[in-house]
Formats: sequence, structure tokens, C-alpha cells
Amino acid sequence: MDTKFARTPLSCIVLAAGKGTRMKSDTPKVLHRLAGRAMLDHVLDLCGTLEAQRTVVVVGHGGEAVAQAAAAHPVAAETAVQEPQLGTAHAVGKAEPLVKGAAGDVLVLYADTPLITAQSIEDMRVQRAAGASVVVLGFRPDDPGAYGRLILDGEGRLDRIVEAKDANADELAVDLCNSGVMLVDGAKVWDLVDRVGNANAKGEFYLTDIVGIAREQGLSCAVVEADETEVLGVNSRVELAEAEGILQERLCRRAMEEGATMLDPASVHLSWDTQIGRDVVIGPNVVFGPGVVIEDHVEIRAFCHLEGARVASGATVGPFARLRPGAEIGVDAHIGNFVEIKKARIEEGAKVNHLSYIGDARVGARANIGAGTITCNYDGFTKSHTDIGAGAFIGSDTLLIAPVAIADGAYTGSGTVVTKDVPRDALAVSRPDLKIIDGWAARHRARKQQRKKAG
Amino acid sequence: MDTKFARTPLSCIVLAAGKGTRMKSDTPKVLHRLAGRAMLDHVLDLCGTLEAQRTVVVVGHGGEAVAQAAAAHPVAAETAVQEPQLGTAHAVGKAEPLVKGAAGDVLVLYADTPLITAQSIEDMRVQRAAGASVVVLGFRPDDPGAYGRLILDGEGRLDRIVEAKDANADELAVDLCNSGVMLVDGAKVWDLVDRVGNANAKGEFYLTDIVGIAREQGLSCAVVEADETEVLGVNSRVELAEAEGILQERLCRRAMEEGATMLDPASVHLSWDTQIGRDVVIGPNVVFGPGVVIEDHVEIRAFCHLEGARVASGATVGPFARLRPGAEIGVDAHIGNFVEIKKARIEEGAKVNHLSYIGDARVGARANIGAGTITCNYDGFTKSHTDIGAGAFIGSDTLLIAPVAIADGAYTGSGTVVTKDVPRDALAVSRPDLKIIDGWAARHRARKQQRKKAG
Amino acid sequence: MDTKFARTPLSCIVLAAGKGTRMKSDTPKVLHRLAGRAMLDHVLDLCGTLEAQRTVVVVGHGGEAVAQAAAAHPVAAETAVQEPQLGTAHAVGKAEPLVKGAAGDVLVLYADTPLITAQSIEDMRVQRAAGASVVVLGFRPDDPGAYGRLILDGEGRLDRIVEAKDANADELAVDLCNSGVMLVDGAKVWDLVDRVGNANAKGEFYLTDIVGIAREQGLSCAVVEADETEVLGVNSRVELAEAEGILQERLCRRAMEEGATMLDPASVHLSWDTQIGRDVVIGPNVVFGPGVVIEDHVEIRAFCHLEGARVASGATVGPFARLRPGAEIGVDAHIGNFVEIKKARIEEGAKVNHLSYIGDARVGARANIGAGTITCNYDGFTKSHTDIGAGAFIGSDTLLIAPVAIADGAYTGSGTVVTKDVPRDALAVSRPDLKIIDGWAARHRARKQQRKKAG
Repeated sequence: MDTKFARTPLSCIVLAAGKGTRMKSDTPKVLHRLAGRAMLDHVLDLCGTLEAQRTVVVVGHGGEAVAQAAAAHPVAAETAVQEPQLGTAHAVGKAEPLVKGAAGDVLVLYADTPLITAQSIEDMRVQRAAGASVVVLGFRPDDPGAYGRLILDGEGRLDRIVEAKDANADELAVDLCNSGVMLVDGAKVWDLVDRVGNANAKGEFYLTDIVGIAREQGLSCAVVEADETEVLGVNSRVELAEAEGILQERLCRRAMEEGATMLDPASVHLSWDTQIGRDVVIGPNVVFGPGVVIEDHVEIRAFCHLEGARVASGATVGPFARLRPGAEIGVDAHIGNFVEIKKARIEEGAKVNHLSYIGDARVGARANIGAGTITCNYDGFTKSHTDIGAGAFIGSDTLLIAPVAIADGAYTGSGTVVTKDVPRDALAVSRPDLKIIDGWAARHRARKQQRKKAG
Repeated sequence: MDTKFARTPLSCIVLAAGKGTRMKSDTPKVLHRLAGRAMLDHVLDLCGTLEAQRTVVVVGHGGEAVAQAAAAHPVAAETAVQEPQLGTAHAVGKAEPLVKGAAGDVLVLYADTPLITAQSIEDMRVQRAAGASVVVLGFRPDDPGAYGRLILDGEGRLDRIVEAKDANADELAVDLCNSGVMLVDGAKVWDLVDRVGNANAKGEFYLTDIVGIAREQGLSCAVVEADETEVLGVNSRVELAEAEGILQERLCRRAMEEGATMLDPASVHLSWDTQIGRDVVIGPNVVFGPGVVIEDHVEIRAFCHLEGARVASGATVGPFARLRPGAEIGVDAHIGNFVEIKKARIEEGAKVNHLSYIGDARVGARANIGAGTITCNYDGFTKSHTDIGAGAFIGSDTLLIAPVAIADGAYTGSGTVVTKDVPRDALAVSRPDLKIIDGWAARHRARKQQRKKAG
Repeated sequence: MDTKFARTPLSCIVLAAGKGTRMKSDTPKVLHRLAGRAMLDHVLDLCGTLEAQRTVVVVGHGGEAVAQAAAAHPVAAETAVQEPQLGTAHAVGKAEPLVKGAAGDVLVLYADTPLITAQSIEDMRVQRAAGASVVVLGFRPDDPGAYGRLILDGEGRLDRIVEAKDANADELAVDLCNSGVMLVDGAKVWDLVDRVGNANAKGEFYLTDIVGIAREQGLSCAVVEADETEVLGVNSRVELAEAEGILQERLCRRAMEEGATMLDPASVHLSWDTQIGRDVVIGPNVVFGPGVVIEDHVEIRAFCHLEGARVASGATVGPFARLRPGAEIGVDAHIGNFVEIKKARIEEGAKVNHLSYIGDARVGARANIGAGTITCNYDGFTKSHTDIGAGAFIGSDTLLIAPVAIADGAYTGSGTVVTKDVPRDALAVSRPDLKIIDGWAARHRARKQQRKKAG
């Protein structure tokens, strides 16, 4: 971020009162998620990045849930209620009591427009610093359609905003459109907002009117252009999916630029907070939930699902592995196919290669866990811990009835149900006698075929 | 669908005689599938939606298989055989004996053009109602190339169809192209078709010629425009994949519009009949085969594969779950990773979280199925049922030798092989003694290392 | 490939000395992989296809690893070292001692431009045969930007190459750009290269200068145009992913053209050497590593991962199956979900349908392997073989302690640990007694709940 200019302090007003009818959802629109995080959180993240002095979320429909989410975010946003909803200027007005005291400028954002970059806001601040009282974030869509047009004067300053339905042919030919995002001089904003009227078809108070009002007062207005992908507003699940796609592309690109190879980035689903190291190779079809950290030189093979997990340098995971919260995969460890790891530390060089469930456990360095191993960590009421020592060899289909400990270097026979601790270098085995009944299969087949005939 | 105009009854003729050499397949071209259903079925679905009085499929290559499929479809289409294949008018002529008696208009469709929407046909019917004797479905491709051009007269009516190879420069500059789909006045169609000649390079009878013939008779012809994606003809597997992509996009969009969130719609594969409720969240990489119903507020996590399954409200499925035909997942039930459910009812709030195979079974409400549980439902000859009562707790790696019943509230120990019914609130356990052999692992390692040295 | 013209012999010089700083990798840039094979290998494959008499790779950064890879490729390329790196002409000069003796023309390729097709090179050879001394491979990018421009003379011959920074407005308006790939008359090339100077900003010797030099000598130069996707140079992981996408699209298209159906080609990841038969159906989300052969009429269902495996005609694999190197799936065999097959032959009609690990094994014809079966092939030191005869029935959760053999037609009971060979038609069973403890679960629950209260 460019910090060569002095920054005026900032207060952010995030409009989040809309109903989102087209979402067809019981969840308030702005709490729908992108990359594992509510749209509102993404916008509040931006406020945090901008080091806003104060952040106020204006809520309406689903207000309580939205207010809770706002308060829970690290920026600890305050909430103003807009009820009924009489337009964007009306909404901004509701934030006035909470913001008015703060020094600096006012930035108006929208909780359903979650892809704005900090760089675009910084560009707007440069325009403010250069003397514009109102700075509007514009964009040039492929199809300007019904968007309000940003009409510039001869010197490239913003002259007015014209709604598409009120625009003449010349104005409609303008492809620079209004995103709604505005940065306004803190000393002027409340006077401008108060002057907005509602003499229009819907009887609503529109924030866009402040540009005209500012110009009438001889104030200068400016436009900053953003890429169309930044200003996508989400009003339906189709648009939510579109926004998710844009965000995923950004996240994947960043991971690749930082040194990760992705065999098919379009098939990788990242979380907002995924951390991926250098010389990491990510196969096709990998899904990251929140809270994942991948260190350098790791290979995450195809068809993996990771959440709340940490994978140390040199480890290999998958294909078909699931790491659940609390999974810590050590240096050079191997997690193979159809393996689920939950709240377990797999230490350096250990291997869990096939068809296993390891939960609430530690697997010591260089231990080898056979196929079909299960840590029986739950008795219907409580969860208990399994501890497997360094260099232990757990035979296939071993059941470890937790709490239980296998000491360093111990073995378990295939199919053993381990009900008590196994000492260092010992073998634990539980195996009923094998009976061979000669000819049984032949008789069984004959019996079955006879029954079939009889039936 | 717009029903503000009186509908003339309709007969549909579906041309399906083409060989499909470029498919390089033993399966007749029109039986290749899109979204889990033969292309022919998609076109017959359209005939059903249009409430066609009679539907005739004209078959040739692979005729028997195609005829069987036509008869098996709910519209119970009849079949006419075209052998040899002497052009589209010749094909339509073969359907004459079966259609001629029916009242109303004749719609000509193509079994390898499976993406036409009912809306486009309704638009054609409006033109018929407005007086056009022949209505042609046109489209404007990015590259008109070799398509026949639809030449309009000064009043926007269809004047003639010109094949690209016969077109002059002005005609080639026209980008309105012929899809082949036609709606013809039932009182005129047979006369028009009979007049088509074969004085052309290939010696074939082309249905497109009826436009010229109609115009010569002073009849009015019209064009209705469809989106290019509707009229895609499938002649190769590359085009089949393209058509699948278009159809999947439509199906995903519809699901999202009805209130489902898709984290990555491009990675979700739907079936033609998938039903998805409101506030359902579908993760990346989910594949739906035919016959799936998902109720409201369900989460289908990443990497799931569902066929013939029903998932009730509030349930969570996956990641890495497979629901096979007959799987019924109850309200608030949980199906976890590496779990296969087949022909089994998992009742309200029950959990099958890890690495299990549940087939031919009932799992009662709130029962908990431990990791590695297997219903041993097959003895090489017959399949048997497993019944698990409400609130039962099945320990990890339990084998349930069907037929067998676990009564309500019963427990099974980890690793138990359940060979007889377990009464209510009882514990079933089969567990051989655990032997600990001190120092065995150390000796084993020494032995192995010695042998290595010796070898 | 068009072979209607007499071919001049060819030597290939592959420039591979670049550092690839933007890759942010410890691996030399040209050893990063596309479709399972180093970029360098793809370019050397092209040299092989062109039947180059001699192939020299010019290395610099990471030279040793690159030289090893070059030598290991079937064309057994020789290596020249460029150190320091003073431009492309300087690099080509380093190959002079190794190439000069060879008859024929010299083709200059780039190891980080791995998507050039043999057809484009053949087109260049046609121009050489028609008299051009230097033939440059050009392309028309959407955005010519900083690419060098290929300026043609009035007769369509190449007049000069102008770097974008040196170009005037007319030259910048030219959208025909330089890919760097050149084919040069073997009798002229060393003289031309020797004449290149370094009187430029960077003080480097640019190969592009030979066009001007050739023209000064009255030699004719020509351009052949390639598609932009062919000449993509890979300098970052983002570009690597882009190249992978282009290559995957080519590979999928070829497989479909040869008679495979792909339900969603964009979700299928092929290897450079994947062989797929006719009437094969590949579901969504299938990943092929190197060395896979799929015969005709096979179905690979969704979510499969295959490497080094062969699948015979009529077999069905997946969903959720993993075939590892040495898996040989026989005619009409079935491999089901959450199944891993490694170094094992599954013979005709055999079934491994659920949750199993079969490694180092043979499964005889028509044998049925129950859910949860594991071949315990590893004792911590050595791998041993499991042999299962034709028609055998392996009960669920059978553990096969290798080395062990189950003869034809034998059965194993569910949960059996098979520690010795089982004769033909016999039953092997190991099963501890089942104890039913009435009321235990009720008491357990009471106890647990009491403790909870007490806690």
C-alpha cells in the first residue's frame, strides 16, 4: 500500500440493512459467506486494513444477527439501526450520532459489496488529499445498463451522477458507472447528507444526491476507477457464486505468486486466511476451510479437505485425506488416502497411509500406522486421548481404546483391540484362533443354490 | 410459460436417424447422455412439456435401441424407420403415416439438439398463431460459418433459407442462421414436404426447402430467435461435453435461484432431476446422479457423490460421503467422511461419521455408528437386513452380520462381530484376550536387521 | 504431420539457462512440471518428434539438475553451459561446438516455452524449403504490449524485428509478435550469430538481431504464425498454471476425439502419457498421474485417482477409488469406493467394492472382496504377497497377513485374521465368542450421567 501521502483519519459506515429477498434465505444477506467468512466480515476486514478510527454498521433486516457479527469482528464495529429503510442517505444519517464526533473523513461502504480492495480506497484518499470534498468509486462495466452514470466535467472532475432512467442519450453513452462507494470530507458530510431530499418516485433519500449538492456549494468532486470485479454487489446466490469465484481467483493468484504450484487453480478452494508456503505443490481438487497453515515444500495431493490444520515442511498429504481442526502434521510426515485426522499431532516422519481415523491423539516420530487403524476416542459421553510413541508400529486394523498409550518402539498385531497401555518395545496382540473348515465353502454354495431352486 | 394465447394442438417429429460417426461409439449418438439422461430423452421431455398430442421418433442407425428408448420415455413416443437416409424432408415424410391423422401443427425437432427450451417453442407458437404457416427457429452464432442463412424480407418475415455454399456475399453477411427446428401448419405440412425435390449435389430431400415452397404458394413464414446455446447440435464427444456444460450451468443457476448456495457451481455436477431445497449449501466438487432430493437447510460438503438418495432437512453430508440408491438421510442426521450408505434409512439425528459401510439397514434416531462399522449384508448369494434401534451406540469397527437387530439403546464394543440380536440397553462384545509380549518388538527388529545384513 | 516436402535434417538448441526468479522456487524453472512431466521434457519430446539429429540444451542456473534431466530424456540431449548469461545469441553460441558439425538447419527453442506444436515447426520447415534463411515463429496476442514486433515487407516477408521500446507508433500498431523460436539455415547460422553485437542498454547479445543481419546480407527471412496458446512462456507459477490449463485442454480434446466421453473435461486432469480407449466414460473430478492405460468400454467414475495403472475393457472404477502404480484391473472387474489398489492384479470380473486396501496381491477371477478387507503386506521391514484364488469370497474386514494364499473358491468369515493359507473351498474363520451383557448400556449411561452431575 502506498503511504507516501499523509493520511487523514477515517470513519467507516457500512450499510447492511437491505433485506436480500432474492437470496431466498433465512440468513441475513450480509452474513452469507465468501471464502469461509461472512460478506460483512470481508468489508470489516477492509475497515481494519484502512485503520478506520470508528466503524459503524447500519442494520435493518436481520439486525440482531448482523449486529452480533459486527461486534464479534476484530474491528468491534458499532451498530446503528435503520428502521424503516428510506434510502442510502437515510441509512448514513442513522450512523451520524456514532460517527459525528470522530475526526477525519467518512467512507461509505456496503456489506453486500465485499470485494473492494484497500488499494482502491487508498486511491480515493489521494483524491481527497488533492482537494476533492466527495470522491466516488466508479467502474466501467461491460454492460452499463441500469447503473447510475458518472458525468465528468471538462477537467475530468465529477460533475454529477445521473440515474440511468433519468439519463439522456449522451449520458447513457457514458460507461463510467457509480459503485455507491464514497469518501466524503468529514467536515462537510453531515451538512451534505442533511440536505438530501426525497422528492423522487420512491420517496427515498439517495446518497448519490450529495454530489450535486456539493457542486452547488462550489465543492470539488472526483472519481476513482476500480476494476469491475471489485464492485460486484451480491443480491442473489448466483452473484454470491460469482463473487466467490472472483475472490478465489485472487486468493489462488496470491498463493502462486508467493511460490506455490497449483496444478489446477480453478479446482482449488481456499479460505480467506489460508497460508501457503514456498515450493508447496497443490494438486487438483483441494478444499481449504478456515485456519490452515501449510509450510514450505509440502505436497497436498488431489482430493484433500483441510480445516484448522497445520502441515509442516516436507510433509505429504493425500490424495483423499481429510485434516480436521487440530490436526498438526509434522515435518516429513505422510498422510495417505481415506485418512481422517482430528485434533491430533502426527510427529516428524510418521506415516498414516491408509483408511484410518486418528482423533484426539499423538503419533510419535517415525511411527507407522497400519491401514484401518482407529482411535476409539468416544464412548458416547466423553472423548479420550491416545498416545503413540516414537517408532511404534501399529498393525493394520488396530483399535486403540482410549485413553491408552503405546510406548516408543512398541508393536501391535493386525486386528488387535488395545485396551491397556503397551510398554516400550513390547508387542500387543489379541487374536482368536483361526479355524479352517475344509469343504465348507463348497457345501455353502450347494446349500444356497438348492434353496434358490426350491424358492 | 406464457399461456395468454390459445394453443393449437401439436405433434412432434423427432429426427434421430443419424449415424454419429464422429462420436466413435458403439452406442447410437442420441442415446449418449447429458446430466444423466439420453439426449433423446431430453428432447422427448420437451415434447412432454409442450403436451404434444403425438410424438414420433424417426430412427435409422441403431434403430432398435433408439426405438426402445423412445417407447420407454413417459411420452411413449412411436417410431418410424428411415432407411436409407435421404435427407431431413425424407425423414419427416417417414413420420407422415403416424402423424397425419392428428389435429394441429407439426413441430420438427432433432434428437441431437437437446437444449432447446420450451420458451423458444412457445415463441414459435405465437408466430404460428399470428399467421405464419412455417416458423423456423433461428440463432445468431459468433461465427455463422457454414450454417444456412435466414434471409428476411423488408417486413421482417422469413423470405428464404440459403445454404452457406450457395449464398452470395450479401447473404453470407447475414448472421441469422437456421437451427433446423420448424413449426409447420398441420394443414399444409404434408403437401409442402411432398413437394420437396432432391435436385441437389447430394441428391437428398432437405426440409429447409419447404420455406421456399411455402412462399411460392403465398404462405407467410417467420423466424423466432433462440440463444446460440439452445441450438447446439451434438456430433462429437467434444460437442457432447460442451452441451453438458451448458446444461449444467442452467441446472446450477436454477438451483441457486431457488435458494441454494453453491461455493463453486462449476465444480458441481447435477442430474436432470436433482431437487434442491432452500438454504442448502453445496460445497465444491459434489456429483449428483439421478433421483436425488435434498430438503431445506441441508449441507452437502465437498467431495460427495449422491444417487437415488433423499436427504432431509437439517442433515449434514460429507465431505467424502457416498449416498447410493435407497439412502434416506433423516432430519439433522450426520453422514461423515469415507462413508457409504446404500438402501438404508438413517433416522433423525443419527450419526455415521467415519469410514463405514451401511447397506440394507435402518439406523434408528440418534444412534451413533462408530468408525469402521460394516453391515455384512452379503454372503455371496443373498442380501440381508440390519436393524439398529434408536439411541444405539455401535462401537468402532463393529461387524454386523445380517440379518441382525440391535435394539434401542444397546451398545456394541469396539471390534465386536455381532452374530445375533442384541436386546434393548444391552452390551454386545466379542473380544479376545489382549496379550502383551515384553521386548518382542525389540527382538523382531534385531532379527529383521540381522537378516538384512545376512541377505 | 505433413510430410509431402523433403526434410532437411535438423539440430535443436534448447535454451534453458534462465534463473526463473519469479517462480520463487528451489527447483530450476525448466524442471517444473506440466501434465506430470518437466517443461524441459516437453520441449525435448518435440525435438524427438522432429527427429532432430542432435539436441543441445544450454544450461546455466541450476545447471547440474537440468543437465541430468536432459541426459535422462529419450533424446539424450547434450548440454552446453552458459555462464555468465549474456543474452540469447550468446547462449546459442555456447552450443556451437556441439552442433556445428551436424548437417542441416538449426532450430532454437526455449525450455520455458513448452507448448509449441510439431505442426508449427513443420510449417517453419516449409518456409525454409521455400528459400527463407531465417524463419521466425510469430503470434498475434490479444495485447501485443511489450513483445517485439515482426515487421513484414510489401511481399509479406520478414523485414525486421523491432523491440517494443524501440518501436515507433506504426510499428507498435503491428500485432504480429516475436516468440523467439527461430529456424536458421545451418550453413549460415554461425556466421549470423557471430555477427550479433551487444551495443544495447543491457549489453547483451540478442538472437533477434540475426534477422537484420541476414537482411543486410540479402538473405530472405520469413514468419510462420502460431496460435498464442503455443508460444506461452512460463516465468511464474501463474503462467505455469496457465500453461497447464492449455495442455490439459489439448489432452482432453484429443481423448474425446478418440472416443472417450468426459462429463466435465475441465475437471479431469490427464498426464502427458495417459492412454484412453473408445467408449470410455470419465466422470467429473478424475486425476490421472503418469503411466495409465484405460482400455475400451471402461467407466471411471467421479473422484478417482490413478497412477501407473492399467484398466481392462469393461471394468468399472470408483467413485472414490485410488489405483496406485502396478494396479492391473481386469476385464469387467469392479473397484468401488474408498478402495486403494497398489501393485496388485484384480482379475476378470473380480470385485473390490468398499473401503479396502489391496496391495502386493493377486485377486482371482470373480472373487469378491468384502468391505474393510486389508492385505497386511508390511511388517515394518519387508513387503509380502497375498494370493486370492478365483471365485474366493473374502468376508468383510478380513485381515490377510501376508505372505498368505487363499485358494480358489475359499471363504473367509467376517473379521477373520488369516494367518495361514486357506485350502480350496474351505472356510477360514477366527471369531471370539459374543457376550451379551443385559442392561449394561443402561447402567453405563446412568453412571456417565451421574459423573457429569458430580463433575
